[in-house]
Amino acid sequence: MTGRVQTAVVGVTGYAGAELARLLLRHPRLHGAPPVFAGRVEEKDLARGGVPLVEIHPQLGGNGAGKLKLQPFSWELLAERGVEVLFQATPHDISREVVPIALSHGLRVIDLSGAWRLTHAANRAVYAFADEGSDQAAATQAQAAYGMPELHRAKIAGARLVANPGCYATSVILAVKPLAAAGLLDIDRGVIADAKSGVSGAGKAPTARTHFMYAADNLSAYGVFTHRHTGELLEQIGIAAEDIVFTPHLLPIPRGILSTIYVRFKQAQTRESVAGIYKEFFAGSPMVRFHEKTLPQIQYSVHTNYADIGFQLDASGRRAVIVSCLDNLLKGAAGQAVQNLNIMLDWPEAEGLE
Amino acid sequence: MTGRVQTAVVGVTGYAGAELARLLLRHPRLHGAPPVFAGRVEEKDLARGGVPLVEIHPQLGGNGAGKLKLQPFSWELLAERGVEVLFQATPHDISREVVPIALSHGLRVIDLSGAWRLTHAANRAVYAFADEGSDQAAATQAQAAYGMPELHRAKIAGARLVANPGCYATSVILAVKPLAAAGLLDIDRGVIADAKSGVSGAGKAPTARTHFMYAADNLSAYGVFTHRHTGELLEQIGIAAEDIVFTPHLLPIPRGILSTIYVRFKQAQTRESVAGIYKEFFAGSPMVRFHEKTLPQIQYSVHTNYADIGFQLDASGRRAVIVSCLDNLLKGAAGQAVQNLNIMLDWPEAEGLE
Amino acid sequence: MTGRVQTAVVGVTGYAGAELARLLLRHPRLHGAPPVFAGRVEEKDLARGGVPLVEIHPQLGGNGAGKLKLQPFSWELLAERGVEVLFQATPHDISREVVPIALSHGLRVIDLSGAWRLTHAANRAVYAFADEGSDQAAATQAQAAYGMPELHRAKIAGARLVANPGCYATSVILAVKPLAAAGLLDIDRGVIADAKSGVSGAGKAPTARTHFMYAADNLSAYGVFTHRHTGELLEQIGIAAEDIVFTPHLLPIPRGILSTIYVRFKQAQTRESVAGIYKEFFAGSPMVRFHEKTLPQIQYSVHTNYADIGFQLDASGRRAVIVSCLDNLLKGAAGQAVQNLNIMLDWPEAEGLE
Amino acid sequence: MTGRVQTAVVGVTGYAGAELARLLLRHPRLHGAPPVFAGRVEEKDLARGGVPLVEIHPQLGGNGAGKLKLQPFSWELLAERGVEVLFQATPHDISREVVPIALSHGLRVIDLSGAWRLTHAANRAVYAFADEGSDQAAATQAQAAYGMPELHRAKIAGARLVANPGCYATSVILAVKPLAAAGLLDIDRGVIADAKSGVSGAGKAPTARTHFMYAADNLSAYGVFTHRHTGELLEQIGIAAEDIVFTPHLLPIPRGILSTIYVRFKQAQTRESVAGIYKEFFAGSPMVRFHEKTLPQIQYSVHTNYADIGFQLDASGRRAVIVSCLDNLLKGAAGQAVQNLNIMLDWPEAEGLE
Repeated sequence: MTGRVQTAVVGVTGYAGAELARLLLRHPRLHGAPPVFAGRVEEKDLARGGVPLVEIHPQLGGNGAGKLKLQPFSWELLAERGVEVLFQATPHDISREVVPIALSHGLRVIDLSGAWRLTHAANRAVYAFADEGSDQAAATQAQAAYGMPELHRAKIAGARLVANPGCYATSVILAVKPLAAAGLLDIDRGVIADAKSGVSGAGKAPTARTHFMYAADNLSAYGVFTHRHTGELLEQIGIAAEDIVFTPHLLPIPRGILSTIYVRFKQAQTRESVAGIYKEFFAGSPMVRFHEKTLPQIQYSVHTNYADIGFQLDASGRRAVIVSCLDNLLKGAAGQAVQNLNIMLDWPEAEGLE
Repeated sequence: MTGRVQTAVVGVTGYAGAELARLLLRHPRLHGAPPVFAGRVEEKDLARGGVPLVEIHPQLGGNGAGKLKLQPFSWELLAERGVEVLFQATPHDISREVVPIALSHGLRVIDLSGAWRLTHAANRAVYAFADEGSDQAAATQAQAAYGMPELHRAKIAGARLVANPGCYATSVILAVKPLAAAGLLDIDRGVIADAKSGVSGAGKAPTARTHFMYAADNLSAYGVFTHRHTGELLEQIGIAAEDIVFTPHLLPIPRGILSTIYVRFKQAQTRESVAGIYKEFFAGSPMVRFHEKTLPQIQYSVHTNYADIGFQLDASGRRAVIVSCLDNLLKGAAGQAVQNLNIMLDWPEAEGLE
Repeated sequence: MTGRVQTAVVGVTGYAGAELARLLLRHPRLHGAPPVFAGRVEEKDLARGGVPLVEIHPQLGGNGAGKLKLQPFSWELLAERGVEVLFQATPHDISREVVPIALSHGLRVIDLSGAWRLTHAANRAVYAFADEGSDQAAATQAQAAYGMPELHRAKIAGARLVANPGCYATSVILAVKPLAAAGLLDIDRGVIADAKSGVSGAGKAPTARTHFMYAADNLSAYGVFTHRHTGELLEQIGIAAEDIVFTPHLLPIPRGILSTIYVRFKQAQTRESVAGIYKEFFAGSPMVRFHEKTLPQIQYSVHTNYADIGFQLDASGRRAVIVSCLDNLLKGAAGQAVQNLNIMLDWPEAEGLE
Repeated sequence: MTGRVQTAVVGVTGYAGAELARLLLRHPRLHGAPPVFAGRVEEKDLARGGVPLVEIHPQLGGNGAGKLKLQPFSWELLAERGVEVLFQATPHDISREVVPIALSHGLRVIDLSGAWRLTHAANRAVYAFADEGSDQAAATQAQAAYGMPELHRAKIAGARLVANPGCYATSVILAVKPLAAAGLLDIDRGVIADAKSGVSGAGKAPTARTHFMYAADNLSAYGVFTHRHTGELLEQIGIAAEDIVFTPHLLPIPRGILSTIYVRFKQAQTRESVAGIYKEFFAGSPMVRFHEKTLPQIQYSVHTNYADIGFQLDASGRRAVIVSCLDNLLKGAAGQAVQNLNIMLDWPEAEGLE
């Protein structure tokens, strides 16, 4: 694909949508081709052609973005504007409906929801998709590449549908997969992933849990043994449910995830042997920063498109604590989506992300 | 009034309600007489006699509070339990309806809402009370004492209805009234009250403004020239609307108010002359801490029942910046309500508040 | 011990010291007998007889505390004032020096530092005490009771020296000990304690780590495999170092600890069987709130003297996630110290703590 | 100046330095010409040629920045590397010493400190510069342009020394200057600037005030009637000290300033008349976003290089509250510095800033 590429974003009103807009507007290969922003527009805003983007996200306003609008969604609009790649940043049930149609219109789709990430029906059960079991859903799922470039770069490059991973899942998989793939883990002793996320991960809807008074000066565990990102861990790491515990927590910060992961090794390792595995695994991956000597913190990653990974080995060399950080809206959502765009269009993988 | 006094709280589910419950449960004069908590109870909880208080406010749970319940409200319940003093911590429209009835049942009422604070109809206009202009409303208002002990201690002692002041209003009035009453202020040059409040002041309802992502890492001004606490400032300070500007801001903290107040004096003052006025004014007031040498900060006041006041004079002695802090849920609401209770029952004013 | 008891606090300037002062000042059995506050006083403050407490902790100021001062420490001062119980809230190296002398003066001591918590020299190695191996140290250690009432109530009652537990240690031990004592744990599969603490746990000294810009909007793991509270876990739970991993994290909040603890059972359990063990273990323990149906959060515990514990079982009944919360300055420090005082003086254990 | 331009940054270790590095590394006109980072390097790091930038600011690490180092400062280094423009992000006393030498070496300098912002000795008195009154200092000051492009664009373009404005000063001057310049203000009635800043404004040194426990969940006023940015307000707005009060506050957030400014007009204004003045004043200024209908909030501006300004008029049209927001590290420091660089080099003013 060469020359000017037209993108569209459905779902720009959310937090990930805002970051996606920001990244696409400043992407060097998309200069002069800002995305089409489409979605539901209220009656009263139709007369003015939609809602100015700066009214939705004032921080985006500037010379360039000043005139862009969220326009009423229609397939005609996308066709007229020559959209080739669609970012779908909507709730999963909307994505289940819309994505098959988008594919039928010949669009390539990067879907940021949980709609198309899971291969196995058992793992999808927690979502209770309305179209579960339908032929169309099966056909769509069959086309989907799991959008984690560090694991599936080649498949993403050719995919028509990329299922952008969950934020927690990205954090945990990037930390565990290299060790699992190298056969180091004593899986019988289990993997524990204790993950903590900022409040933007809970979405923009005002709820009891997203109230400032609930989240601030607090920490709470939730979704213990039941969180729906678990299926992604099982499928991508290749681990059985009984061998991993994943516990998310709500952190009193706007954004960022830190996962503390506990593993045991079959055989004693050295700092160098473990580091070597990570370095080899991420050798061609510009968006993962492996920290050989220190443990990353949330501040390393927030407002960047990187995942940061480090570890500590115990004296016996048999146990390790791995710390994995990322910005849930960037490497955990919009940044990874743009990374996937770059790969799909054969552009440098880190373009517009550094 | 002697011996055991039975209180009741309507509106315990809110933030001020929680603090009120905590204060009343540990009040030395109310040992053995926990308040009756009454309000709306859902169908499903009727069978178990209401909702355990610890399910509503887990931090309150302990040996004492473990068995208390929020019971379905009825006048019969209050009568059976021998309630003498009712704390009404409900939205102002509810208080407008309920308080006249409570008075007719012979209860003494401490109302924490804005329903009965304002003497002048013009100042009440911003509330648009449904019963505005009715005889009953006028008769009720006529009985109300404005519940700021530092200004109206004697009237509160004998009142059947105490209108507990607004949190912002308490903060500003306590800072300005002593200087205004002493005739120091050059009113023509205006008074500016720049006030900042934690998010609990915005209430428990999840809204766009109380969302963690809106409030955290942010500061925003609101209600500029229109905030409904303004009327309290006008009536209690005795100042015209054109001579004061009051601007509230939403602080990214759970609780606490700091008001920065700018005044000009008719004549040059000294540090001692101004301090002397404050000290005299608050001589018999245990819940105001005047700081002669330093400016208070929000941390001085939060989780206490005190208002903290200090000031800085400029070199000319003609201008002062006054800083006034309090906990919006305590001296700005529940703490002041209990202070009023103490006065109404002729108990030591600070009982249970230190 | 009956009648008026005189206490003293050395180390009131720190965060735990402030809470200790607050609790002792409002303790019903100590009315009329405020603690003697003693410590290092600068030359310039000697003339005025020490530093007013309200200058050190402005939030403590009120009618009662207004006249109290931090006085220059001397054994004569304590003797003159008839001090019987000394709270030592100083760094551990100071406590190692001072506590033996205090005991020799006939004082009973509640030491809040890490100086006297550990029985085994191997576990003390991380502190590198200067007097390690001395006869005096050994004799002092031999007198020490580990001040966790839920485990050692009887011993504390008669102790002359109570070593108040570490905040993290309290959080983890209370959660794990009941299950370990009941023989439920599959120790070979390991216990993981992923703990998160507010910044007050890091002390009052301004450092790079306690800078607002480091701690805010961040989360960081530290002391992985090396934190000095680990020894308390080993000794009190009765578990070997290779069977537990304890990882502390610095939370962007002022106070509160939440520990997420992962255990495996030898045999499948039910929700009821596990709950039964906790309820039995804590039956006579007023300062632990066991939550049968929900997981506690930090907000449940902060500004209270309670530890809050809950758990979630997986479908197999073989794995559990336990969540344990407390206020690191209260049940994790000052609150537990006062609980120990109550026990030592044969007062109701929860007196002044609810 | 055409072709490749080599810049240098002295003072990259601070918060503004980190942002400056980030902006310069991604500046489109500086691709292939990363800045030289120079400063004090410890003995132990000399052997490895300085300290890798990613060890100082881990969030900056990525492919590009991976190899850059903070090198030991010397004039030879700057000469060898062909540095033409020097960003001096050091404390003001260092800038007073270094900047005259830099100018003598033919460098153009953008100084981010308070060293060269003030024309009048009286306003500089608060800094107590060691070289105050010297010929060299006078000659250097005479060359300095006050680096606020919206006021002094032409002078900046030709300047050899640009004194980058203070963060608070930028916030207040941009809000007040347009109205003052248009002759609208009733100066006799005074201007009140109540400003609030995040903690990064207090610098990187760990102090009692920058401790998390001091700043978090708090708000405090400081420097009342004495803050050293006041001189910039007087000189740039053209107002006498007795006609303005500027009160800074420390906000419990990492970054961002919001100033609430109170003015009175000589004659009644309309919303349109006031808006018209702002729009005209900022017509050619890409880095100011004037909000015609809403009041900006800190979140609008943080992590952007813009200043955001809005206002509210009272019913009489005689009083206005102006709200002015910016990111103290960007438009209040590094962003404005790069804006000045663009102007000095005749590049588009907003290049690399959107």
